[in-house]
Amino acid sequence: MTGPRYPSLIASLPETVPFVGPEVQERARGAEFAARLGANENVFGPSPKAVTAMQAATADLWKYADPTNFDLRNALSTHLTCTPENLIVGEGIDGLLGYLVRLLVDKGDAVVTSDGAYPTFNYHVAGFGGVLHKLPYHDDHENLEALLDKAAEVDAKLVYFANPDNPMGTWIDGARIEAALDRIPDGTVLILDEAYIEFAPKGTAPNIDPNDPRVIRFRTFSKGYGMAGARVGYGIAAPALIRAFDKIRNHFGMNRASQVGALAALLDPEWLAQTVANVTASKLEIDRIAAQNGLSTLPSATNFVAIDCGGNGDFARAVLAGLIARGVFVRMPFVAPQDRCIRISAGRPQDLTEFEQALPEALQAARTPA
Amino acid sequence: MTGPRYPSLIASLPETVPFVGPEVQERARGAEFAARLGANENVFGPSPKAVTAMQAATADLWKYADPTNFDLRNALSTHLTCTPENLIVGEGIDGLLGYLVRLLVDKGDAVVTSDGAYPTFNYHVAGFGGVLHKLPYHDDHENLEALLDKAAEVDAKLVYFANPDNPMGTWIDGARIEAALDRIPDGTVLILDEAYIEFAPKGTAPNIDPNDPRVIRFRTFSKGYGMAGARVGYGIAAPALIRAFDKIRNHFGMNRASQVGALAALLDPEWLAQTVANVTASKLEIDRIAAQNGLSTLPSATNFVAIDCGGNGDFARAVLAGLIARGVFVRMPFVAPQDRCIRISAGRPQDLTEFEQALPEALQAARTPA
Repeated sequence: MTGPRYPSLIASLPETVPFVGPEVQERARGAEFAARLGANENVFGPSPKAVTAMQAATADLWKYADPTNFDLRNALSTHLTCTPENLIVGEGIDGLLGYLVRLLVDKGDAVVTSDGAYPTFNYHVAGFGGVLHKLPYHDDHENLEALLDKAAEVDAKLVYFANPDNPMGTWIDGARIEAALDRIPDGTVLILDEAYIEFAPKGTAPNIDPNDPRVIRFRTFSKGYGMAGARVGYGIAAPALIRAFDKIRNHFGMNRASQVGALAALLDPEWLAQTVANVTASKLEIDRIAAQNGLSTLPSATNFVAIDCGGNGDFARAVLAGLIARGVFVRMPFVAPQDRCIRISAGRPQDLTEFEQALPEALQAARTPA
Repeated sequence: MTGPRYPSLIASLPETVPFVGPEVQERARGAEFAARLGANENVFGPSPKAVTAMQAATADLWKYADPTNFDLRNALSTHLTCTPENLIVGEGIDGLLGYLVRLLVDKGDAVVTSDGAYPTFNYHVAGFGGVLHKLPYHDDHENLEALLDKAAEVDAKLVYFANPDNPMGTWIDGARIEAALDRIPDGTVLILDEAYIEFAPKGTAPNIDPNDPRVIRFRTFSKGYGMAGARVGYGIAAPALIRAFDKIRNHFGMNRASQVGALAALLDPEWLAQTVANVTASKLEIDRIAAQNGLSTLPSATNFVAIDCGGNGDFARAVLAGLIARGVFVRMPFVAPQDRCIRISAGRPQDLTEFEQALPEALQAARTPA
């Protein structure tokens, strides 16, 4: 009865999770969070039209979803001014990142990212045996040109760059990305993760030919469209790379109601505009609360704000623990020097009231020697 | 501008899809199907309690799902008399099969299945570079003992065995599976795919210790529970193998409403019993329609019936094409000699009326030389 024999790569992987879910923490503390501001979820929720569409589709869930995501890709192609052949729809950006890494990264292949950028990408790279090269943030920004130069140095298959960035919320102009495209080395693909693009100022999204073989962009319905739990992300790339996903993806992996909901959400730009306005107002409130506690915030092009707690990582971790203990779910960067900050997702007024009450106490507790 | 460099395994994979979705066929023929009886979907649909639960959860879809699937695994552990540590929940059996193959199959590793069994499993094995060894069906049944002996011969990492079988609908007694467990070679894992188990006679599901390291069983909410488009499957295995999924799975890949819906469906055994009764009645109707056309059917422990068209594969393919052309979506086995059959999913009376009208015409057309 020996059971499974794991390949050496699998045997070497840790049983770790990129993120611990808030429900897990709630069970550990024996109480629900009073405010859920840790996962950059969009508490303003999906468009009511998307909700109605998904509810109507629920009784139809005996059917598998269309494996080609035809209707959604068609609508997205109009929205983005590209062709459906430039689009892959999948189970969130997380799912698509996993497929992309599998498509390109063989054991030992080099991959470049920033130290402290999206850990789920790193998880996928490790999971397929890639070798991660991490560059430091520059002044709390991912450093695109340095990442591309590093890619040339290590002959990387993939470079990860998020604009706007998570977890700091910083961003660079689209024009700077356009200017950097010619730095992409031969044989390297630049991942441009635009999960938060709907919250960013005009000009943040670069103009990139969707047929450019050097770039794949990822976007999602999880953030701006408020549908994280529906699991719909998409990639924009040259048709040859898009078709390659068909070699390996879970063709029938999409939820049928989610397809319908994403389509309805895309066709309700008024709701998106209102969400962005709500998020903007909420970020100003977070700035105000931080200032009230003598703390500074980073400018943000996302639906969250990084608050500089004014100390080192241990201090910020103590503040975070104090917030969690007081019923406010938040997260923070994993890596120094970004880990001097905590990261607060935009919330409704009632969510920020919880945060406003908890923050001074958490700061006080963190400053008090145990 | 060279773009992506694919590893040799990826470059070698075809851009093929295990199954073409009915929506793709509908667009090709320019009309919707009048009856959707090809994908073994359960047209009797989800429990109304599951529908209500999913609709209520829709407005909450701004939240990611609990990545541990805690509530659903807890309820399943009670239902199955095992522990939550014996259970992995994922994006349908398709998604879980992909994860399992990735966990165990390295390039060149041997895997054993039946020639004509579930093609999506084969797709995953090929996608990770495994070497498939296929044994013929025996008298329209997957041949468990021969599969296990083959596994010993080729030193297989995995053996795939579905009970009941798809696409033939046949099954073997659970007692025979229990008796065969000691044939599982050291270092081999037996996949017992029980996607259709809710439709099978008592005694079809074997008693297997959930901690047995040699076996992983898969079940789903897609078939008996009528929730194919919600994408919820689960695996039952020893905790060490279950934990290994955490090394590679898309932790936040589940739809939040689907988790809630599956839980509600599990807690409504009356609806399941009614569905099974509806399916049983429908299968008798399919038998009757076949007999009316001079055709025999195979006994089925699933929600579909294989009809022997009485000729070879080319003849059955012609009958299938005739049904498709007449607006009835059906599929058929890919491999001889099983491809003498077409496979009809259980349907409502109105679905079977469409089938009853189309079948004699399709047979007539198939018998008429072009």
